[in-house]
Amino acid sequence: MTRIESLLLQFIQTRQHTQDICNPLELEDYVVQPIEDVSPPKWHLGHTTWFFEEFILKKHLTNYTLFSDDFSFVFNSYYETVGKRVIRSNRGNLSRPSVQKIYEYRDYVTNALKEVIAKNNSLELENLLEIGIHHEKQHQELLITDIKFILGNNPLLPAYNNTIKEHSPETHMHEWITIEEGVYEIGHHTDEFCYDNELGRHKIYLQPYQIANKLVTNKEYIAFIENGGYTNHNYWHAEGWDWVKNNNITSPLYWHNIDGKWHYYTLNGLQEIDLNAPVTHISYFEAFAYAQFKKLRLPTEFEWEIAQNKFSWGDRWEWTESAYLPYPGYAKADGALGEYNGKFMVNQKVLRGGSIATPTQHTRPTYRNFFQTNLRWQYTGLRLAK
Amino acid sequence: MTRIESLLLQFIQTRQHTQDICNPLELEDYVVQPIEDVSPPKWHLGHTTWFFEEFILKKHLTNYTLFSDDFSFVFNSYYETVGKRVIRSNRGNLSRPSVQKIYEYRDYVTNALKEVIAKNNSLELENLLEIGIHHEKQHQELLITDIKFILGNNPLLPAYNNTIKEHSPETHMHEWITIEEGVYEIGHHTDEFCYDNELGRHKIYLQPYQIANKLVTNKEYIAFIENGGYTNHNYWHAEGWDWVKNNNITSPLYWHNIDGKWHYYTLNGLQEIDLNAPVTHISYFEAFAYAQFKKLRLPTEFEWEIAQNKFSWGDRWEWTESAYLPYPGYAKADGALGEYNGKFMVNQKVLRGGSIATPTQHTRPTYRNFFQTNLRWQYTGLRLAK
Amino acid sequence: MTRIESLLLQFIQTRQHTQDICNPLELEDYVVQPIEDVSPPKWHLGHTTWFFEEFILKKHLTNYTLFSDDFSFVFNSYYETVGKRVIRSNRGNLSRPSVQKIYEYRDYVTNALKEVIAKNNSLELENLLEIGIHHEKQHQELLITDIKFILGNNPLLPAYNNTIKEHSPETHMHEWITIEEGVYEIGHHTDEFCYDNELGRHKIYLQPYQIANKLVTNKEYIAFIENGGYTNHNYWHAEGWDWVKNNNITSPLYWHNIDGKWHYYTLNGLQEIDLNAPVTHISYFEAFAYAQFKKLRLPTEFEWEIAQNKFSWGDRWEWTESAYLPYPGYAKADGALGEYNGKFMVNQKVLRGGSIATPTQHTRPTYRNFFQTNLRWQYTGLRLAK
Amino acid sequence: MTRIESLLLQFIQTRQHTQDICNPLELEDYVVQPIEDVSPPKWHLGHTTWFFEEFILKKHLTNYTLFSDDFSFVFNSYYETVGKRVIRSNRGNLSRPSVQKIYEYRDYVTNALKEVIAKNNSLELENLLEIGIHHEKQHQELLITDIKFILGNNPLLPAYNNTIKEHSPETHMHEWITIEEGVYEIGHHTDEFCYDNELGRHKIYLQPYQIANKLVTNKEYIAFIENGGYTNHNYWHAEGWDWVKNNNITSPLYWHNIDGKWHYYTLNGLQEIDLNAPVTHISYFEAFAYAQFKKLRLPTEFEWEIAQNKFSWGDRWEWTESAYLPYPGYAKADGALGEYNGKFMVNQKVLRGGSIATPTQHTRPTYRNFFQTNLRWQYTGLRLAK
Repeated sequence: MTRIESLLLQFIQTRQHTQDICNPLELEDYVVQPIEDVSPPKWHLGHTTWFFEEFILKKHLTNYTLFSDDFSFVFNSYYETVGKRVIRSNRGNLSRPSVQKIYEYRDYVTNALKEVIAKNNSLELENLLEIGIHHEKQHQELLITDIKFILGNNPLLPAYNNTIKEHSPETHMHEWITIEEGVYEIGHHTDEFCYDNELGRHKIYLQPYQIANKLVTNKEYIAFIENGGYTNHNYWHAEGWDWVKNNNITSPLYWHNIDGKWHYYTLNGLQEIDLNAPVTHISYFEAFAYAQFKKLRLPTEFEWEIAQNKFSWGDRWEWTESAYLPYPGYAKADGALGEYNGKFMVNQKVLRGGSIATPTQHTRPTYRNFFQTNLRWQYTGLRLAK
Repeated sequence: MTRIESLLLQFIQTRQHTQDICNPLELEDYVVQPIEDVSPPKWHLGHTTWFFEEFILKKHLTNYTLFSDDFSFVFNSYYETVGKRVIRSNRGNLSRPSVQKIYEYRDYVTNALKEVIAKNNSLELENLLEIGIHHEKQHQELLITDIKFILGNNPLLPAYNNTIKEHSPETHMHEWITIEEGVYEIGHHTDEFCYDNELGRHKIYLQPYQIANKLVTNKEYIAFIENGGYTNHNYWHAEGWDWVKNNNITSPLYWHNIDGKWHYYTLNGLQEIDLNAPVTHISYFEAFAYAQFKKLRLPTEFEWEIAQNKFSWGDRWEWTESAYLPYPGYAKADGALGEYNGKFMVNQKVLRGGSIATPTQHTRPTYRNFFQTNLRWQYTGLRLAK
Repeated sequence: MTRIESLLLQFIQTRQHTQDICNPLELEDYVVQPIEDVSPPKWHLGHTTWFFEEFILKKHLTNYTLFSDDFSFVFNSYYETVGKRVIRSNRGNLSRPSVQKIYEYRDYVTNALKEVIAKNNSLELENLLEIGIHHEKQHQELLITDIKFILGNNPLLPAYNNTIKEHSPETHMHEWITIEEGVYEIGHHTDEFCYDNELGRHKIYLQPYQIANKLVTNKEYIAFIENGGYTNHNYWHAEGWDWVKNNNITSPLYWHNIDGKWHYYTLNGLQEIDLNAPVTHISYFEAFAYAQFKKLRLPTEFEWEIAQNKFSWGDRWEWTESAYLPYPGYAKADGALGEYNGKFMVNQKVLRGGSIATPTQHTRPTYRNFFQTNLRWQYTGLRLAK
Repeated sequence: MTRIESLLLQFIQTRQHTQDICNPLELEDYVVQPIEDVSPPKWHLGHTTWFFEEFILKKHLTNYTLFSDDFSFVFNSYYETVGKRVIRSNRGNLSRPSVQKIYEYRDYVTNALKEVIAKNNSLELENLLEIGIHHEKQHQELLITDIKFILGNNPLLPAYNNTIKEHSPETHMHEWITIEEGVYEIGHHTDEFCYDNELGRHKIYLQPYQIANKLVTNKEYIAFIENGGYTNHNYWHAEGWDWVKNNNITSPLYWHNIDGKWHYYTLNGLQEIDLNAPVTHISYFEAFAYAQFKKLRLPTEFEWEIAQNKFSWGDRWEWTESAYLPYPGYAKADGALGEYNGKFMVNQKVLRGGSIATPTQHTRPTYRNFFQTNLRWQYTGLRLAK
């Protein structure tokens, strides 16, 4: 199979998978945006489509006619280079275009892409196609976490479906993996796809360290809660402590204490907490506070990358102590695609690993996810180091 | 026809009319809440239904089973007496219950109401039924203005339908109607239905005054704009001037200046402004500023009520200079229904008349509508006095 | 004594009295602005002086040299007509001009005023001088309440002095004064000074009513607190209830519950509450809620004015049920002085009477004070009616 | 000279120097707090004194009597461990304690410290004394920048004095200093005082890099402004771009464009800009954007530390690309002193060097200053790397 054939296959599968994710939804679920960080599912459907139209069809398909002049305005996200856009907090106020119209838009663009691929297989097209596929996979992850928030924020707590299993118990006994000090190499180095923020394979020096072979579990986290974790400022950063107090945070997101027993909202509905499953839906502030409580710390992203082949990743994104910064030699691409990663490299923390919401083959040992330190709606957990 | 037969007929027609109003909508339009004052149409559908369930069925239908335990929580509006409720600004974040479910809820409650009416026609039931009908009519008015905002706030500016005519030109030549000073009587005094805030027929003393026979038109209002109405603080209350500056107000709501020509969004879509139609979608602040610009004033609600049979009302709610206050002897009813009017009698202005969104037979000469001084999404206009 | 001689005398006494009020302060007390409604004492000293310079000296004293070009910018309050001004919330951030400099400014302007009065006694000058004196008297009232807030907001609760007596017990037994229905006249009608908002003597019609001969006392108000006044939404306007909840209001301003006993901060420092003194430092929302709790109401400003010679006023401004609106025929003066009253005639309530902070001869039966419904730092109380 | 003798001398000099800094102020300047980040000078005077009382006198001076019970409440800053404190944004609302009282407090505590030193020279006392001295030196730096903001924010733009020289021109020609790749050592390693955040001397690996021998000048920065630096989103982080737009940022802090010519407020008053002086009062966002504009980057703190002996530091704190994070092995001290540094190690950037506001012997090659990415009131500049 040639590269273009392989990409075409992936493209078709990815486009389909996005729609499969939305399949269990009521039409109304496509529309709402309960908080600014969560986008309406219909926006994800449209935005991933717009990306292909904007960056491939407009340039590479002769005589391509836009599906609608207005859609580039409605479905642009943060690409300042590409003109005006609906401000992010306003996405949930737009009932139009309708979901039906957006599915028509998807079909229209998917078909045009097939046409362009059939006619034209330059390297540039292949690379754009690849990034478009990975862009849509990233949004698949967000789709699942955003759907969870939309349903889990609703007082009726409706289930998404009955098949996704969010929580698998940690089966390993706790052990410390020991890594010796020395010079190590960090960053992507194979021929596979990666984002520009993983590039620049480079040396770093690590002090000797130990990293846990397993994620922190709900049972362990409940001990933190019960020992005053949310009321003792000593465990927290000053900014984290303000966040706790201003938002009355007393447990991870989606947790409900019903008659003294902890439950959580899952994609299958409300459930009793599985004590042996890894804790999830915690902010960096909480991950840090938990580590302080244990008199331990979070690993850096480099410590994680070097040790990662020695433990099972689990199905949680793991907060690291590392700030999201460019690797040596990093330079933003020119034009709108240059806005993909670089402009977020401030005041965010790196997460490593992957979660149950991550599509197959979308993560890898060098993958760098990143979020602000107060966010919790992703499947975020933690692993300890010392 | 007995009173209960007449009420049953009104009830059935009113329930149907609410659904007719929603008929042209896409399903997505039922869900969103672009600003706090605007409720999602599906919320109006549910809330008017909940009102009948809460205040009639629970008490007057033996063995009545609630359609859903959760709905009283979701569809309560501001009745603090009736337990917890979803905060108003969160209504647009709830994708469930689905529109389909709410229509089932409507049918269920409508049928139960028919049953209760067939079995039971006490005066108390009749009075509750009557207030429930009028409550739903009030929400029909809000439904139309909220739908207009939902569509008119969307960058695609979709039309609602092609049949509603929002604007009929003022055909009268301007004349001043003169009323002599003296003692007059104010307030409701017939056997017809009215709200408690219209009761307490009482004497007031009016100074001699003149009131215009027609509403201010778009053409006249454009002269205000063109003569610096929005940039000269002298025309404005201090609070109004802050509102203008903080919100960059430069024209009525829904107005768009396209290539130097004024257009407005209407339920039929974007149109050129009809210069002879009454100006609408202005706040009290704007109405007051316009009157200052003309060196005239707004009438009080009493001046309006005494003069109202001498002019044609038009189809705009008219801002008056009167603050919304209780009439002499006004007392809140006991219980949750007492929350209907009395608790809003502060920092709002009275509007008189009725608008194109007002259902038939819903307004009358003594009807007192009321809104905060900065609100514009109703069909609000103004008539001058001196 | 001619009018100008009398005004000169008043002018000198008023200028001196302002400084007497500031006498007990530490220099630091002149500078701070703990909330937007409270101005720093040094700002009051400068602003009342600027008023004379701006409206009299600039026009009526030939060759007058401004004390400083910058002061009109710093000490203008809300006179949009007179150019740029420091925004109100920024007054407490300005350490310069120093207090010493402002006292020099006061002397400079006072002397220039004496000069202009000696040379020139036109009616226009007399009228401007009179309004300037009354303007400064109004600020004397604010000076006292602002000083009280500045010291009472400080955790050290320092006393202002030991001589002002804020609270004199109500000595009257409660009685209802009965007024018959009929046409009455309202508004100023003597030759004495009044503000433009009192003018337009006019007829109004009053229903029969009764008004209490005394103000509500602290003892009575404590009964309201102890009977759940602040936790029962039924007593409150919807807007008032939001205010209570958002600000955690549980008692009047300056009240402290120490070991189960109510105390309040007074200008003499912290004291046990005098149960028989009139309650004070309550918002309109609280006054209204108290009346609801008693199943009574507040009087209108007209009821108060007609009955006021039948009771002792006490030393509290009294909230009325009346919205602050123009009297018939009211028209704003031209120019900056027209901004004095008219532009505040929206969303405020009228208070009648006067308080211990009111300078001698500054209030009268027709005087209309006005504040927003949530404000409490004035000496505000209430009298019941029915 | 023994260590305790040397510390006593430093203590006396430091206490005196703080007061010398305040000497040119008017009393009113001690009181105000124009923004939350800026504390009133009187608060600095009290807080540095409270630090000695809280951490030394209470424990080490037998029978020590607190100067005032209330002061620990008023002058605590962020030490959550030591009980309640005045929230930071409220400092400028407190006129008491008076400046005079605070100077008395300083004398009282300074004398008690001399007494405790005379009696007791344990190592623990010496260490606490040393940290107290360095704590006060840090506040001397803040005192100068806070005074500059207090005066520079005032529309009268008063000078602080005529002797401080804020700006010395860069005299070096631009050159790139080249550093080879390899393993280097970072962190404090002498016997001199340092903060806990500098400890943990450890190895790091550096890629080859070049760092400029001089700071970016005003002239160079003006070229950035004139080439659309503040209007081209491509140069900015997404968060930085929001900051620019929300705050209408168009130049460094204190810059005024007067008739087309750039001026800045300095401690000597308003001056024309010295084109050859290093640019200052810029945020990290601006430093980063400038580097992007030049297609270069900021150095990391490690690159700076390794190269710093090869260039002259200038008199500006220099923004680095490094997030403020703990060094390997860092652990917070127990108790309240543990709150000194560790709890700020999130969402801030490291600055290296020192500024004209830095007291003598207060900075060193390993010193790590840190601020949020939007702050500009320190003397912050930038040096380029590649």
